[in-house]
Amino acid sequence: MTSYLEICKTEVNAYLSSMFWGGERAARLFEAMNYSLLTDGKRLRPALCMATAESFGVSRQETLPAAAAIEMIHCYSLIHDDLPCMDDDDLRRGKPTNHKVYGEAMALLAGDGLLTEAFARISRRMPSVTAERQLRMVQLLALRSGANGMVGGQAVDIEMTGRSGSLDDVHFIHLNKTARLIQASIEIGALFPELTEIQFRALSIYGEALGLAFQMIDDVLDVVGSREQLGKTPGKDEQENKLTFPRFIGVDATRERARATIERGETALREAGIARSPLFELQEQILERSH
Amino acid sequence: MTSYLEICKTEVNAYLSSMFWGGERAARLFEAMNYSLLTDGKRLRPALCMATAESFGVSRQETLPAAAAIEMIHCYSLIHDDLPCMDDDDLRRGKPTNHKVYGEAMALLAGDGLLTEAFARISRRMPSVTAERQLRMVQLLALRSGANGMVGGQAVDIEMTGRSGSLDDVHFIHLNKTARLIQASIEIGALFPELTEIQFRALSIYGEALGLAFQMIDDVLDVVGSREQLGKTPGKDEQENKLTFPRFIGVDATRERARATIERGETALREAGIARSPLFELQEQILERSH
Repeated sequence: MTSYLEICKTEVNAYLSSMFWGGERAARLFEAMNYSLLTDGKRLRPALCMATAESFGVSRQETLPAAAAIEMIHCYSLIHDDLPCMDDDDLRRGKPTNHKVYGEAMALLAGDGLLTEAFARISRRMPSVTAERQLRMVQLLALRSGANGMVGGQAVDIEMTGRSGSLDDVHFIHLNKTARLIQASIEIGALFPELTEIQFRALSIYGEALGLAFQMIDDVLDVVGSREQLGKTPGKDEQENKLTFPRFIGVDATRERARATIERGETALREAGIARSPLFELQEQILERSH
Repeated sequence: MTSYLEICKTEVNAYLSSMFWGGERAARLFEAMNYSLLTDGKRLRPALCMATAESFGVSRQETLPAAAAIEMIHCYSLIHDDLPCMDDDDLRRGKPTNHKVYGEAMALLAGDGLLTEAFARISRRMPSVTAERQLRMVQLLALRSGANGMVGGQAVDIEMTGRSGSLDDVHFIHLNKTARLIQASIEIGALFPELTEIQFRALSIYGEALGLAFQMIDDVLDVVGSREQLGKTPGKDEQENKLTFPRFIGVDATRERARATIERGETALREAGIARSPLFELQEQILERSH
C-alpha cells in the first residue's frame, strides 16, 4: 500500500516541477535552484502541512502553494548549510552539494532565490483562504524560519560547535534549527480550515514536539546510520564536535526522549479533540525511520 | 533646511533601532544583523516608499514597517554581495564589511536573517491597510527581490563578469540587480493609499525608470568618485571587468541616458495626474548625488 507520505511526495514533486520559473538570461540560477529543489527529498514538511489541513477536510491540492513554500525554505537552508563557510559538505541526499556543482557564488544566490521565492509563492492569493489568514501564514513562515527561529538555531549551532555546552544548549539548537520549521508546517496547514484558537494552539504544541523528536532521531541516525541509508556522510556530528543529544545522554535515552516528547504532543491533540488525522501515520514514520 | 531624505532617514533609523530583536543565545547573530543594518546608509529606498505614500496623504509613520522591510532586503543583499565568494569587498559605507568582523558563516546567516525578518516585518498586520493590499505588498517585495528580480540580476552579473556582453546585458543586470527593489519601494508605498490601477501603473513605471537611472549614476560614480565620497573602494567595476554603462557608452552619455530615463518616468506620472510629490526632491538628489 502506498503510504500517505508517498502520496504527498508525488503531489508535491509534481507541483514543484510544474512551477513556471522563467528567466532565459538567469537560466543557470534557476537550474541551480531546481538542482537542489527537484531532488529525492522525503517532502516531510509539505506532507505535515497537507496532513494537518486534510484532518479538517481541506483538499491537499489547495495546500500545495504553502506546502511548496515550506519545502523551498527547507531546501535553501540545506544549500547554505552545506557551503564551505558553514558545514562544508560535499554530499547531500546522495548527490554532490549545490556549490560542488554550481560554485559557491551561484549556490549562495540559489539559496537566496529559493528563500525569497518561498515568500512569493505563499503570498500569491489563495482563493479558498481569507487574506487575513493568508497573511498569518506568511507571518508564521517568516517568524519560524527567521532569526528567532531556524536561522537563530543555525547561528548558535555554528557558534557552539567544538565548545562544551549544556543539554539546554542542545535543546535550544534543536528547537530552533529544526523544530520551528516543522512546527510552522503544521501551523500553516492549520490555517487552511477555520479552527478554534484552542485547536490551533494544540496543533502548534504538537508541531513543536514532533519537530524536536525528529531532530533527536536525526542525531541518533548520525551515530548508527550508514552512508547508503542517509545519502550523506554519517558520523559528521561527532567528527565536528556538534552538540547533540546522544553526546549528552547516549543513543538509547535519546530514542526514549523522542518518544516521550511526541507523547506530550499527542496529549495536546487529544485534549483539543483531534483524534483522527493522517498526522499520526507520518509521526510513526518519523519515529521509525532509518534515514 | 533639512531635506526630505534626511527627515525620512532620521525616522527610519529610529524605527530600525527600536525593533525589538530578542535572543540571548543568538545575541551574536542579532549583533551581526544590526552591525550592517544600523549603519550610516542613505535610506533611499525607505524614503521612496514613504514619499510615495505621503503623496496621497498617508503618514510616514504608517509606512515604517514596510519601509524598514525594504531596507532590510537591501541590507541583506549588500552583506551577501560582499562575501568572498561574491564581490569579496573589505569596505562598505566606510566600515569593514560584515564578514570581516563576524566571519563568513555569521555574515551568511545575518543576511539570511535580515531577508527572512523583512518578510516577518511586512506581514505583521498593518491596521490601516486591508489584508488584501498588505498581501500584495508581500508579493511585490518577494517578486522584485527574488529570482526574477534582484537575485536574478546578481546571478547574471556574477556570470557575465569578465565576459564580453552587450548593452542589453547591462540593461538586464541593472534592471534586476538594482532597479527592481527601487521600483518595489515605490510600488509598496503606492499600496498604502487606495489608488486607481492607472495611478499604480504610472508609479510602477516611474519606479523602474528611477531605479535604472540610479544604477547608471552609480556606474558613473564608480569611475569618477573617490574612496572618501563613496565609503567604498572606487574603480572596482573596471578592475573586476564588470558590465557597466560607461564601459559601453562612456561617462557623459551614461549621465545623459540617466536623465532621459527619468524623464520617461516623469511623463508616466504626469499622464496619471501625479504632479506634486516629495518624490521629485528625492529624484533630484539621486541625479545630483556624489556618493
